[in-house]
Amino acid sequence: MVIVQKYGGTSVANVERIRAVAERVSKTAKQGNKVVVVVSAMSGETDKLIGLANQISPNPGEREMDLLLSSGERVTSALTAMAVESLGHKALAFTGRQMGIITDAVHTKARIEKITGERARKALDEGYVIVVAGFQGITEKDDVTTLGRGGSDLSAVAIASALDADLCEIYTDVDGVYTTDPNIVPEAKKLEKISYEEMLELASLGAKVLQTRSVEFAMKYNVPVVVRSSFNDNPGTLVTKEDKEMEKVVVSGVAYDKNQAKITVMGVPDTPGIAARLFRGIADSSIIVDMIVQNISSDGNATDISFTVPKTDSKKTLKLTEGIAGELKAKGVNLREDTAKISVVGVGMRTHSGVASQMFDTLAKHGINIMMISTSEIKVSCVIESKYTELAVRVLHEAFGLSS
Amino acid sequence: MVIVQKYGGTSVANVERIRAVAERVSKTAKQGNKVVVVVSAMSGETDKLIGLANQISPNPGEREMDLLLSSGERVTSALTAMAVESLGHKALAFTGRQMGIITDAVHTKARIEKITGERARKALDEGYVIVVAGFQGITEKDDVTTLGRGGSDLSAVAIASALDADLCEIYTDVDGVYTTDPNIVPEAKKLEKISYEEMLELASLGAKVLQTRSVEFAMKYNVPVVVRSSFNDNPGTLVTKEDKEMEKVVVSGVAYDKNQAKITVMGVPDTPGIAARLFRGIADSSIIVDMIVQNISSDGNATDISFTVPKTDSKKTLKLTEGIAGELKAKGVNLREDTAKISVVGVGMRTHSGVASQMFDTLAKHGINIMMISTSEIKVSCVIESKYTELAVRVLHEAFGLSS
Repeated sequence: MVIVQKYGGTSVANVERIRAVAERVSKTAKQGNKVVVVVSAMSGETDKLIGLANQISPNPGEREMDLLLSSGERVTSALTAMAVESLGHKALAFTGRQMGIITDAVHTKARIEKITGERARKALDEGYVIVVAGFQGITEKDDVTTLGRGGSDLSAVAIASALDADLCEIYTDVDGVYTTDPNIVPEAKKLEKISYEEMLELASLGAKVLQTRSVEFAMKYNVPVVVRSSFNDNPGTLVTKEDKEMEKVVVSGVAYDKNQAKITVMGVPDTPGIAARLFRGIADSSIIVDMIVQNISSDGNATDISFTVPKTDSKKTLKLTEGIAGELKAKGVNLREDTAKISVVGVGMRTHSGVASQMFDTLAKHGINIMMISTSEIKVSCVIESKYTELAVRVLHEAFGLSS
Repeated sequence: MVIVQKYGGTSVANVERIRAVAERVSKTAKQGNKVVVVVSAMSGETDKLIGLANQISPNPGEREMDLLLSSGERVTSALTAMAVESLGHKALAFTGRQMGIITDAVHTKARIEKITGERARKALDEGYVIVVAGFQGITEKDDVTTLGRGGSDLSAVAIASALDADLCEIYTDVDGVYTTDPNIVPEAKKLEKISYEEMLELASLGAKVLQTRSVEFAMKYNVPVVVRSSFNDNPGTLVTKEDKEMEKVVVSGVAYDKNQAKITVMGVPDTPGIAARLFRGIADSSIIVDMIVQNISSDGNATDISFTVPKTDSKKTLKLTEGIAGELKAKGVNLREDTAKISVVGVGMRTHSGVASQMFDTLAKHGINIMMISTSEIKVSCVIESKYTELAVRVLHEAFGLSS
């Protein structure tokens, strides 16, 4: 089998951890597998480099930022290859370029365009373990790019796809994907399997196990991904295509996100093009809007528009929105930062009704007011007051039978 | 003018130092020059990375070592480019590869084969300041190489040559090249000018201002090099072709090297091929032998051979030599580590006699015994007991009129 193993920052945090990674790689190779390892920077390194850049310049150039940040993964790829070699294997460290990871030229959040991988295929056939520096690629013009936060997950999945790997293992510091955060609900259970769609909702909802784009990529190219811990031998969670069995479970997990602020524009004249004008203005500032809800206001001639943005962008968004609201002759703008988003996710919802109403009932029964609602085929999300977050997670986990 | 400026580890040691470098670069660019900056890793970084590698493996692979070590210079090139940009210039950070530095495949001490430099020439014409990561290149097969300790000096000189630069400035933490170590002789004077040949002798004699290979390269391609401090605006020392004026000075400097151990093989049968056998054995272990002296022994049928090696290699060399001495039926091997090498250097020696005898006289007058002597056209070196090092430097500096 060809197996891609990706190790995150905490898994390569120091010499001892890198040795442990090498032991696991060695074991996998000795079982007769061709192994490609993808590594992140040692935990803390990327933030340290960003800190240096910000001290140097308030607005560091993105091309130079990529050159800077890519160095962290190069260090771990070299060290990990040395560690694997010291266990008696042949090993080669590859940069993103040497792996043939070609990206577009959108620095600091480049997209992978193709992976040539010729040299890797040859080296694997010659019996080498390959250790690739994650998070990075190269443009057609020969400049180094990085793939954005969590980009090493994407490197691993894309490499697995390019090399037709049988499995892509993502090693992290948790045992897999849980029905909810075990810190809030001790009875939370590890899922044996989860569909790409569900994982995608969970990833974007703040359960930071896998980077969103890597899940999209895995889904698109049907790469089987296992999320597991590098600190033990537990089997982890398989992220794969939806199957019959998964549909039997109505709700697979309860997720929460405390990093959402809610902005409401009140009394907007109800004419076409208003929402477009508002959200174009926000999008132009590269602020990511998550939920959007629009209601007719009480007097019937005007409308209230509410939406959520990451809390880090809330002040900037408020200022921007106030400007646009003035142009639109709206009555006012209101920001709430004491908010959180709670979501229940499950592919079973497609064939089962009543999930939304059960969710609303459960929250109501515990006196939790709902400020916004948004739904998709496999998800129901509510914005609530953030002080109720833990309570909401606990009662929903219980209500949907995940605690038993 | 095209000017190459190289900044060493202490000159880019932290954010403040990098900002100071950027100010100097900016000033040079504003005077209408095209500027190429070559940077080392922040001081301490390379040693930190070597330390990590040695913790991982007693024998880290050299290809991976190069990938590892090259990351330090990439970090500073990116940060320095950001700093230059923040002062209102256009700047581009280049890796060794992007600069087109092609080397052979002798990892950790690669030799530069050529520098294509096309992209750099184009960028300079477009008004960019270029900041190159020193110390590194790339093989024809696309693997990263490093140029050995002090390799950034070589990068700078080679780039200056490839771009037909008018000047190559090497910025360091001292003001230039001195007649001797000012820590020992406070009256030591900074030289305004020195010939490549003299600099070469001084560099290899332990006056660690410029890396030896970079001086060889500058001499071969006639690159004018200025050594100066990044901590002030003093003019520095110009390293250039020998001229008439230089020949007037008999001795330009007094150098010392405390890192030499002396090994003597006693009573070697005086037959052809003996020295070859001995030194081939040592060279095969990549140990660099500096001075070699052979004398007939007292009984006339055997010979004593003495040589010096770096102290770090002395134990290994002793063991090796004892083995070979046994084969050669020598009487014994003796190691002395309490030794130092003192040298006087000057192109004027070519046309002035009596330098050697004046040196021996001066040492004798102060009761310093000479253990070995070696001479070249422009240098006389003596091995003495190391406890006399400072005394010898002082009295020779005085005797050759360098203190006045």
